[in-house]
Amino acid sequence: MTVLINNLCVIGTGLIGGSFCLSLKQAGACRHIVGAGRSEATLQKALQLDIIDHYETDIELAVKDADVVFVSVPLGAMASVFKQIKTGLNKAGNSKAVVTDAGSSKQQVVQLAAEIFDANDGDAKNGRSEDGVVEGEFGACRFVAGHPIAGTENSGPEAAFAELYKDRRVILTPSADTDADAITLVTELWQATGAMVETMDAAHHDKVLAATSHLPHILAFGLVHCLENMDDIENVFRFAAGGFRDVTRIASSDPVMWRDICLNNQKPILEMMQRYRDELDMLYNALESGDGEKLKEIFEHAKKTRDKFTH
Amino acid sequence: MTVLINNLCVIGTGLIGGSFCLSLKQAGACRHIVGAGRSEATLQKALQLDIIDHYETDIELAVKDADVVFVSVPLGAMASVFKQIKTGLNKAGNSKAVVTDAGSSKQQVVQLAAEIFDANDGDAKNGRSEDGVVEGEFGACRFVAGHPIAGTENSGPEAAFAELYKDRRVILTPSADTDADAITLVTELWQATGAMVETMDAAHHDKVLAATSHLPHILAFGLVHCLENMDDIENVFRFAAGGFRDVTRIASSDPVMWRDICLNNQKPILEMMQRYRDELDMLYNALESGDGEKLKEIFEHAKKTRDKFTH
Repeated sequence: MTVLINNLCVIGTGLIGGSFCLSLKQAGACRHIVGAGRSEATLQKALQLDIIDHYETDIELAVKDADVVFVSVPLGAMASVFKQIKTGLNKAGNSKAVVTDAGSSKQQVVQLAAEIFDANDGDAKNGRSEDGVVEGEFGACRFVAGHPIAGTENSGPEAAFAELYKDRRVILTPSADTDADAITLVTELWQATGAMVETMDAAHHDKVLAATSHLPHILAFGLVHCLENMDDIENVFRFAAGGFRDVTRIASSDPVMWRDICLNNQKPILEMMQRYRDELDMLYNALESGDGEKLKEIFEHAKKTRDKFTH
Repeated sequence: MTVLINNLCVIGTGLIGGSFCLSLKQAGACRHIVGAGRSEATLQKALQLDIIDHYETDIELAVKDADVVFVSVPLGAMASVFKQIKTGLNKAGNSKAVVTDAGSSKQQVVQLAAEIFDANDGDAKNGRSEDGVVEGEFGACRFVAGHPIAGTENSGPEAAFAELYKDRRVILTPSADTDADAITLVTELWQATGAMVETMDAAHHDKVLAATSHLPHILAFGLVHCLENMDDIENVFRFAAGGFRDVTRIASSDPVMWRDICLNNQKPILEMMQRYRDELDMLYNALESGDGEKLKEIFEHAKKTRDKFTH
């Protein structure tokens, strides 16, 4: 495998960031990986598991020599992390780094990156061009928004594994002014993990993911939560079969991450939830009126669609 | 393994009935299996796959020498099948057979069995006792209602396998007047398949299953159906990850079977659907008002509950 970069900095070394590191190491695509993040215990664990070669608790220090900075933190931490990355890169005079992320919703991330990386925050002294980019400073045009469509319900460095991205899709949502070389480099890194890379408009990404990922997660969390307060709940779960376990598997996902995804992709998710409530009302009314034909028709359609798209 | 019975008659030789046959054969628990059912093609397939030793398309003929009749047909076909069983057993003077079923909802089945097996339908000429049971005729007291908490999204004889019931729970819901020997025999047969047998009140069964099985199936069918009409649906499914596939697996289940389950367990299911609609409204309102704390709290509770009961 070709070495693509010398220094990778990964901020957030859990399932997503850790698996990115492990697969790039296995592929020989980068020479050195620095981990950074809020929790030193997590970083120590990542070091111990050979996910990273070194760590810094200070993001500003961690990014200074980075060719690529990979941000895999919950969406709610993104703004603060972006600010520290910017300060770190600018202090080190590293304006050539490429920054990318793995956030599950993209419009807000793209907007944050534009605001933070191109902001005139007082540090910029000269050379600011009309679009707000300062010569010699890290600018949003070198930020490539991305989202790997992969994961498990587990989290933390212990959950990371090198094959997570193999044959999975990664969606990049670059803006019109994103640097073409930066897009190419991020694409090549993802391909080195075994993933298939596609490019999409951020708004379209958010709509598609609201339907296929965010809504299902909310429904699963909601299902477990709505059963929680039933009488005799121990018994109820004792008789739960494989179907229940499958439907609710993703209700074991990280609550903070999913709170952030919901808040970040609020509008598309609310639209999908409304759509689903209408569907549920229709099913309720069909069952209440004993309309077996209607129920059968809905079930048949669903089965046909699912069988078609998953086989 | 001990031989428990000589002749088993299985009506409906698909996933549930076929797997029952295969596991009893493997255990050596019965000597001869006759299959019966509506579709001769299915019966031929079951014969070819060594699920049954022989078949009859006429249920009246199929049951005549049976020690045990196992009914695994969709709930909507139960009444008609029970009537044919009764006629067949009475014509053959086989009042000692035990009849059991595998229906996913139990109150209506128990009621049907009581009505049909103990009915004075004109054939009965004499000996009818106060409770409607005719001496020498098959009576409802030899019917044992049952439900194996096992299955896959696949159906038909090809989907059957001997290990389906291994370490799975089977719930029996006998009535107060069900014959104790009949309960024992059905229990032993299920144990021979590797299942764990428990007894429960039919109404309680229906409530528990509405929560852990029927509601999740309806939610999964509804999820796929509500996405079906989205623009760009091909793309939407292309980006569906493992979570989506898991949540919707059971939407590939048999539509007729699930229509019948819904109609048969209408009231408990409607109650659970109402409960779930309230949950979804709460989640919708929390997200609409940007209440991250509330979302996180619900997700945390759900994760904790699921982790506790599934590990």
